[in-house]
Amino acid sequence: MRLSTFSDYSLRVLMYLGGQDDRLVTIAEIADVHSISKSHLMKVVHQLGLNGQIETVRGKGGGMRLARPANQIVVGDVIRQSESDFALAECFAGQSTCRIQGGCCLPAILNEALSAMFLVLDGYTLADLLGAPQGLVPVLAGSLLTGPD
Amino acid sequence: MRLSTFSDYSLRVLMYLGGQDDRLVTIAEIADVHSISKSHLMKVVHQLGLNGQIETVRGKGGGMRLARPANQIVVGDVIRQSESDFALAECFAGQSTCRIQGGCCLPAILNEALSAMFLVLDGYTLADLLGAPQGLVPVLAGSLLTGPD
Repeated sequence: MRLSTFSDYSLRVLMYLGGQDDRLVTIAEIADVHSISKSHLMKVVHQLGLNGQIETVRGKGGGMRLARPANQIVVGDVIRQSESDFALAECFAGQSTCRIQGGCCLPAILNEALSAMFLVLDGYTLADLLGAPQGLVPVLAGSLLTGPD
Repeated sequence: MRLSTFSDYSLRVLMYLGGQDDRLVTIAEIADVHSISKSHLMKVVHQLGLNGQIETVRGKGGGMRLARPANQIVVGDVIRQSESDFALAECFAGQSTCRIQGGCCLPAILNEALSAMFLVLDGYTLADLLGAPQGLVPVLAGSLLTGPD
């Protein structure tokens, strides 16, 4: 059971921006830091913009930054918005081959478990992810200097 | 975010057996009911045996049945045993490309969310999944008569 790469990258973009104060950051910069493809990041950034989590400035010197303070970006919301579905079992999706649908309590129990999970995730914001008072800036600066392991 | 097919099928096998009292059931029978491959089910059944959830009787007239009463088979245990990993984000797995490992609080928050999820799943047994007093037997009998939709 794992989050999608899309969610993983969404969180990484937000955490990176959260460590930059109000500086405009390019996709290329984040792609370099994390050694991930620009084309994949472009989709992630586009979606974060649509969801109102970041704002972008076009043109030379442009880039992106958080649309709101880090303590107003809820982790549960980001994951809810970036996961394509929460069809924990096949029967959650539209087309199920399961023969015991309708007589089985599994969907209700899995939904209760998911709700418990999001109750935790909704209790944290991007500011909590950034952790230490100085945020991730030192870690990121170090990785820029040392490059990939 | 979804459970593996392996977990899905593990639960289906246990739910089927839970509706059969002590009758020995073959892999072919469950494969027929759910229209899923016998070879995939064999792996699932093998693992359920290793985990002590079912017992098998070899030879002619043989098959499998629950190793314990349904109210002693905990849903959280079954999912814990059947998922290959709970590496919710890439950084949970051994080889991560993430550049902010060590300065990021995401793993701790995701682990807390997972614990909340399992607290729910550990509160239910196979008996709860079977739901109504008559269990899934009528549903399964109906599906055997009508075949796939």
